[in-house]
Amino acid sequence: MKEKQQNILIIGAGLCGSLLALRLAQRGFNVSVYEKRPDLRKVDISAGRSINLAFSNRGIKAMKLVGLENKVKALCIPMNGRMIHDTKGNTFLSNYSGREHEYINSISRGDLNALLLDEAEQHENVNIHFNKKCLSVDFEKTTALFKDYTSKSEFIEDADLIIGTDGAGSVLRKSYYLGKKFLFSFSQNYLSHGYKELSILPKGDGSFRIHKNALHIWPRGSFMLIALPNLDGSFTVTLFLSYADGKYNFNNLDTDKKVLEFFQKEFPDALAQMPNLLEDFNNNPTSPLGTVKCSPWHFKGNTLLMGDAAHAIVPFYGQGMNASFEDVVEFDQILDLKLDNWEETLKAYETKRKKDTDAIADLAIDNYFEMRDHVANPIFQEKRKLEMALEKEFPLEYSSKYSLVTFNENLSYSEAMLKGRAQDKAILNMLSDGNISLNENLKTVLEKIKEETQNILEEDTIAKLR
Amino acid sequence: MKEKQQNILIIGAGLCGSLLALRLAQRGFNVSVYEKRPDLRKVDISAGRSINLAFSNRGIKAMKLVGLENKVKALCIPMNGRMIHDTKGNTFLSNYSGREHEYINSISRGDLNALLLDEAEQHENVNIHFNKKCLSVDFEKTTALFKDYTSKSEFIEDADLIIGTDGAGSVLRKSYYLGKKFLFSFSQNYLSHGYKELSILPKGDGSFRIHKNALHIWPRGSFMLIALPNLDGSFTVTLFLSYADGKYNFNNLDTDKKVLEFFQKEFPDALAQMPNLLEDFNNNPTSPLGTVKCSPWHFKGNTLLMGDAAHAIVPFYGQGMNASFEDVVEFDQILDLKLDNWEETLKAYETKRKKDTDAIADLAIDNYFEMRDHVANPIFQEKRKLEMALEKEFPLEYSSKYSLVTFNENLSYSEAMLKGRAQDKAILNMLSDGNISLNENLKTVLEKIKEETQNILEEDTIAKLR
Repeated sequence: MKEKQQNILIIGAGLCGSLLALRLAQRGFNVSVYEKRPDLRKVDISAGRSINLAFSNRGIKAMKLVGLENKVKALCIPMNGRMIHDTKGNTFLSNYSGREHEYINSISRGDLNALLLDEAEQHENVNIHFNKKCLSVDFEKTTALFKDYTSKSEFIEDADLIIGTDGAGSVLRKSYYLGKKFLFSFSQNYLSHGYKELSILPKGDGSFRIHKNALHIWPRGSFMLIALPNLDGSFTVTLFLSYADGKYNFNNLDTDKKVLEFFQKEFPDALAQMPNLLEDFNNNPTSPLGTVKCSPWHFKGNTLLMGDAAHAIVPFYGQGMNASFEDVVEFDQILDLKLDNWEETLKAYETKRKKDTDAIADLAIDNYFEMRDHVANPIFQEKRKLEMALEKEFPLEYSSKYSLVTFNENLSYSEAMLKGRAQDKAILNMLSDGNISLNENLKTVLEKIKEETQNILEEDTIAKLR
Repeated sequence: MKEKQQNILIIGAGLCGSLLALRLAQRGFNVSVYEKRPDLRKVDISAGRSINLAFSNRGIKAMKLVGLENKVKALCIPMNGRMIHDTKGNTFLSNYSGREHEYINSISRGDLNALLLDEAEQHENVNIHFNKKCLSVDFEKTTALFKDYTSKSEFIEDADLIIGTDGAGSVLRKSYYLGKKFLFSFSQNYLSHGYKELSILPKGDGSFRIHKNALHIWPRGSFMLIALPNLDGSFTVTLFLSYADGKYNFNNLDTDKKVLEFFQKEFPDALAQMPNLLEDFNNNPTSPLGTVKCSPWHFKGNTLLMGDAAHAIVPFYGQGMNASFEDVVEFDQILDLKLDNWEETLKAYETKRKKDTDAIADLAIDNYFEMRDHVANPIFQEKRKLEMALEKEFPLEYSSKYSLVTFNENLSYSEAMLKGRAQDKAILNMLSDGNISLNENLKTVLEKIKEETQNILEEDTIAKLR
C-alpha cells in the first residue's frame, strides 16, 4: 500500500476531521474533505452550542504531532482548578493537581477549528468542500452520496478509504446501522439531564467578572451550573438540569419569572453577573446529553468512523475533543506500522483504540455524578485535599484519577480508569474507616494507598478469573 | 380507569405475549393479539431455533399466577446440574444447588406456547389473529398498522393501550427509535460468537442416548457445545462458536470434512451420538447472540414494550423466558396498585422493573464467560464444591449466585446480582489466599464468607459515595 497514491475522503470538517486531514496531508495522502456547514471562518455557526471546550494534555500531544503546539497556546486560557460556588456565594478553589505545571485550558471551538482548517489548506494535497452534506455511504462500494447545498444537486464521490468524522449524528454510522450487512453493535444512551448555554459578559473594560483561571462550578446535587473563560473576557456558562424531574427542570422553567426565581435561589452570585440571563435562556437551545458507542468502526478496508462519530461522550471529564484528537495520534501510530492493506490497518486501529474510548465514555459518566453530587461531599473533599498534598509532596510517585486521565497522555484511558478507580476506592474506604488521615505522615499515607490500591486490583483480577 | 372497559392490543403471540394475553383476560380486559406467524399449533415453525429452553422458579411463579402450574409440570424435564464433558469423553456432574428440590427444567418452546394459547383462547374476551404482521405503530395516536399475510391487505387497529411483545426485533421498538419524537436510549450488542442448533436423536427404543436429567456442557475455552433433553428422548444440542476468530469458526467450517474434524477433535463423545451431525449443521441457520436494552419502554400511557422487545438477553443464564414471564408477574402487581391512568401505571412498572432486566442481561453475559472458560478452572471448581457443601449443610443460610438468580423468585435480579457477585468475589479471593478451604469446619467457612461478602458490599457502597 503506497500512501501517496491513496485517495482518502473525510466526511466532516469539525475538530477531528480537520486535524485528521492535516495529518494525513502531512503524510502525503490525497485528502478530500466534505463538510455540510458553511466555512466557519466566514460565517458564525456556533449557535449556542459548545462555544468553548476543555483542552488538555492528550489534545496537546496531537498538536505537537502536527507541529501546532505554539500556535494553539495563544488560544488557551489556563484553568488551574475548580472554583466551587455555594448558594451563599462563598467560593473555594480545588486545584486539578498538586503539580503546578498540570492544568487544563479553556479554548474556543471556532478558533481551534479555524486554525486546523488554515493549516490543512496549506497542503496542496488537501481539498476542503463546504456546504456539501453527506446523505449516505455505500460502504461496500466505498462511495458517498452528497447534496450540494448551494447548487441543490446531488453527486457521488469515491475513494480508496472513506473516514466519517461527522460527529455524534454520523451519517456513516447510520449507514452501518440501517444497512444490516453485518452485525453492528450500537448504543445511544441519554442522561435524564439536558444542557443550555448561557453567558457572563466581560466588564466594560473588557476584564473578567469572576476569577479568570478556573473552571467555575455551582454544584447543587441534582443539577449544576459551570462556567469557562473566553479570551474576550466573557465566560460561557452551561446549565445542566433534568428535563422532567425535580422542583425546577427544563420542562417547567417556562416563564421568565420562574427562571429568575430559580437562579435567585440557587445561583445568586452568578445571577448578579448575568443581566443577560433571560435573553440567553430564551434564545439558546436546550440540548440532550448522550453517549454513543459502537463496533465495528470499520467495514473491511473501505470505511472508518473516528471521533464523536465512533464514540460520542458526555462533557463531564472535559475529554471529548481530547479523545478525538488522540484518535488521530493513535491512527497515525498504526499507519507507522505499514501494515499490508487498509483492512488490517483499520482492524489494528480499532483493536488498540476501542477499549480506551469505552473507558473515557464511562469515566465521563462517573464525573457527571462527581461534579453534581460529590464535590460537595465532606469525605470527597477530604480525599481531594489528601491527593493535592500527595501530588505536591510526591510529584513523581502519586497521581490522582483525574491526573491519570487528564495529565498523563502516555497512559491509556483504560489503564487510567482501572488504576484511578481502584485508587479512589482505596482512599475513600481508608478515610471512612479512619485508616488514613490528613494529620498522618504523608509518606505513610502514600504507602498505605499504594498497598491497598494494589490489593483492590489483585482482588478484582482474581474475581474475574482472568 | 375501569379495567373491564379497556381494550388492549398485544403485538406478538410468542411466550410473553400469550401469557400476557391470558393474564389480562383473567383480569377482565378486552384483549386482541396479532401474530405475524401462522398458528404454531397447526404448523411447525421452529426452524432450528431455540427448540427447548431452561425453565425455572421465576417462570413457574408466573404459571402459578395464571393457574397453570400443574399443566406445565407435565412438559418439564428436570435438569439437576451441569454434566461437564472433557475432550477425552470423561464426564462429571456439577449440581446447580446443594438443595435437592432446586433444579431447572428443559421445556419445549412450542409445547409451552401452545398451552398458553389454548388457555388464553378459552376466555371470550381474547381474540388471537395469526398471519398478521405489524408494520409500524403510531405511538402518538395509539394505533398499529398491520399486513394480513393471507389477504395481502393492510389495516389499522386502535386500542386504549398497545403492548409490544414482539421479540428482539420488535416493530414497536423500531417505531420508537425511528420516530425521534423523544430521547430514546437504545443498545444492541452482539457477541463475537453465534450459535447453531444440532441434535442427538433418541435410541431406537425411544430412550435417551446420554444422561437425561442434566444440562450437558462441553466447555472448550473460546467455544462450547451444550445439550438439553426433550420429552421424545432427543437432545437439542447448541454449538456456540466465534464467527471469525480462532482455528475453527463458523466462517471457516465450510466443508463437511472440516466440521467432522472439528467435532472429532473437540467433542468426540458427542460426535459418537450424532450420526446426523452434517445434516443438522448444513440445514440449520447460524444465528447471532445479542443483548438489547432500551428506555423508556413506554410512550406516555399509549404503548409499552415487554419481554424480549424491551430486553433481549443472551441465553447463558437460562433466564430469557423466565425474565419475560416475570415481566407479566410484575406488571400484574403494578395493576393491583390501581393507579389513576395508564401513564402512571406504565411509568411505575418501568421504574420497578428496568433495573432487574438490566441485571439479568449483565448476569447472562457473566455466565457466557463462566460456562465457556471458568467451569474448567480449578479454583472455580473448588468454589462450586464448597458452595454445594454449604447449600447442603446450611440450606436456609447459604445460596450461591446461581441459586439467588435461579431459585429465589422473590429476590429481584438486581439484588441477586449485587449479593451474588460480592459473594463470588469473596470466595474466590479467600480460596486464592488460602483463607478458606474445603477441609475446614464448614460453619467457620460460612461465617468468613458472610463477613467478607458484607465487607465487599460496604466498600463498594463507600466507593460510590452513595
